Amino acid sequence: MTDLYPEEKRIQNYLFNIFKTISLKYGYEEIEPPILESADIYKKSGQEIPQQMYTFKDKSSRLLALRPETTPSIARMIQNKSLQLPIKWFSISRCFRYEREQTGRAREFDQFNLDIIGSSSMQADAETIKTLIEILKALKLTKKDFFIRISNRKLIEDLLKSINIKNIKEVSRIIDKKDKLSEKDFKLALKDLKLSNQQILQLQKILKISSLNKIKIQSQGLQELKELFSYLKSYKIQDYCRLDLSIMRGFDYYTSTVFEAFDSKKQFRAIAGGGRYDNLASFPGVGYGLGDKILTLVLESKNKLPSLKKQIDYYIAPVSKSIIPKAIQIAEKLRKNYTVEIDLLNRNLTKQIRYASSITQNLIIVGEKDLKNKKITLRNLKTGKEKKILISKL
Amino acid sequence: MTDLYPEEKRIQNYLFNIFKTISLKYGYEEIEPPILESADIYKKSGQEIPQQMYTFKDKSSRLLALRPETTPSIARMIQNKSLQLPIKWFSISRCFRYEREQTGRAREFDQFNLDIIGSSSMQADAETIKTLIEILKALKLTKKDFFIRISNRKLIEDLLKSINIKNIKEVSRIIDKKDKLSEKDFKLALKDLKLSNQQILQLQKILKISSLNKIKIQSQGLQELKELFSYLKSYKIQDYCRLDLSIMRGFDYYTSTVFEAFDSKKQFRAIAGGGRYDNLASFPGVGYGLGDKILTLVLESKNKLPSLKKQIDYYIAPVSKSIIPKAIQIAEKLRKNYTVEIDLLNRNLTKQIRYASSITQNLIIVGEKDLKNKKITLRNLKTGKEKKILISKL
Repeated sequence: MTDLYPEEKRIQNYLFNIFKTISLKYGYEEIEPPILESADIYKKSGQEIPQQMYTFKDKSSRLLALRPETTPSIARMIQNKSLQLPIKWFSISRCFRYEREQTGRAREFDQFNLDIIGSSSMQADAETIKTLIEILKALKLTKKDFFIRISNRKLIEDLLKSINIKNIKEVSRIIDKKDKLSEKDFKLALKDLKLSNQQILQLQKILKISSLNKIKIQSQGLQELKELFSYLKSYKIQDYCRLDLSIMRGFDYYTSTVFEAFDSKKQFRAIAGGGRYDNLASFPGVGYGLGDKILTLVLESKNKLPSLKKQIDYYIAPVSKSIIPKAIQIAEKLRKNYTVEIDLLNRNLTKQIRYASSITQNLIIVGEKDLKNKKITLRNLKTGKEKKILISKL
Repeated sequence: MTDLYPEEKRIQNYLFNIFKTISLKYGYEEIEPPILESADIYKKSGQEIPQQMYTFKDKSSRLLALRPETTPSIARMIQNKSLQLPIKWFSISRCFRYEREQTGRAREFDQFNLDIIGSSSMQADAETIKTLIEILKALKLTKKDFFIRISNRKLIEDLLKSINIKNIKEVSRIIDKKDKLSEKDFKLALKDLKLSNQQILQLQKILKISSLNKIKIQSQGLQELKELFSYLKSYKIQDYCRLDLSIMRGFDYYTSTVFEAFDSKKQFRAIAGGGRYDNLASFPGVGYGLGDKILTLVLESKNKLPSLKKQIDYYIAPVSKSIIPKAIQIAEKLRKNYTVEIDLLNRNLTKQIRYASSITQNLIIVGEKDLKNKKITLRNLKTGKEKKILISKL
């Protein structure tokens, strides 16, 4: 598991602050479900997740899981309480998945989630996608760096039906894995599911459709997507979004819109993923999850991570041990308005200055002589310039 | 486990922000150790903690624990990396303890930790205690509401030795439980440990000592406490602090100073607890933990929790579905500077106003007629006053 030292935690806080700022801007409120949940709430989380869960029995023999994802907790929370609609929530939650550790995957990671519950309008789907794009833009990613792939479960099902595919669930799972398979293996997997050569060809054609106008079947999913894209246009984010019928998202609970954010070169796994889940809770819902690990990798690869250092306003250097009590009082005075550190190691002045230079520009030297005149020496560690200041003027 | 709905999360964020602000003011940096740790790092965490841990074997048969407390992780982290001293860290960490659920105890809770590593000066102990008091004061608690009890492990050991007690560890554990026992049971427990009546009387006298001047034995612990109290005076917090030789803190790793924050009436368990641990890591350390649960109870009992409501700057009400695209554009324009929500439920205007009144003072009505004049209607939901505003002037 990862230790977040100050340098990593600063980066994480930088990300979290952006998640929070954008969420609040759009009227979302922060919540936090527990980490320990009943294992059975993840039954609709698809094939992979239940296999990757850390589960164990507690002392009363209940099967518990360390939360592998947040949506089922949200569904549970809105079931347990009568709440005003729409529910607009975001959360930053530690999640756990026991999988092979590889680039961008950690067994313990933080995930930002944003959800709207209670609206079945595609306007809600568009708003969640808009917040995702706003977050990525606030992180200095541009149109060149990422894009959103969008599909609709109802539409892909209707399209599969239109070419007489019966085992839709199994075929969907192969489509979900398409990006990880060679074309040959993809075809073989479909053959194993008894698809004819013609069906495979038709399916490949379907998965390449890039414009809704080319779809001629009747489908509620098609109407929904058209409506969604019109709202994306109102939000002026159509350029970030692409129709991509090959995306499925692994979760079984998605019922309509599904979407993913990817880096343009598809060098990494999905940055974020989400969709509409109308049957998971007592109300229709839509939302997405955005993990911190892939996002950090993407930002690193594009040199978009800020360099953040420890920085305080003042460092107080007492020249000897007997002066510490007075130095503490000066530190406390400054702490009313500033961030202030004082020597804790009884170092000599040279060592104190070396340390202070790494964290501040302003050094205050507290010495016997100055104190007699009720003064201290303020040194600018950048320019080396010093001046005496009355303690009462600090 | 607890679900934090927006109202609870707002309270938690209020606490967390104060923890962070004070920590940064004193030059501490945020870190975050993982939740899953090797169970064996908690061997020095005393008697209770290992019994309360959630442990389980992962798929590679390693015995893991859900972090029951943070100090051992910090000791591990400083061992794993070469770092500049002093290390001044704080963290807000989810912790897990499987204990009987009762008021102020939850199996999953958040704990604020603040630590100084690398300084053996009592100045460090004083600084950590000062930050704790600053936090409680920032939460509007006063001298009347809480106090800090302080002791020193070396001193109490020397005092026990001075009355010929040999089984110091066992006796310390009974002292640790003193507050939970009647006087009779306390004496009985000491008798079981073979203390004579005279020793018990002497011990009771020792535990009541309230001034360092009354202690006449030679002890490094006594010197440390004297130094600590002189620094507490420099920090002008001596009025918050009391010598109390009856406190032990359960953890085995404390070697010197130990302290606890309590509500004045001792109505609740300790709000915070900490101490010096000079042998846990490769450097001497001192720090404390402050859980969110007892703190919240104390603040509630004293009516010091702020009432925090969802509050946004503007609510945008489109009067009909066809107007939504234009309303979205107005919302987006305002979102550059404000927090803005827009109707997602296709509600009629009356319902929208009812909802909007619960979260904002400013309602923007977007209607056909106004739009023709490139205007919207801004209604103050408090006064009911309306005015038309050019969209370009928003």
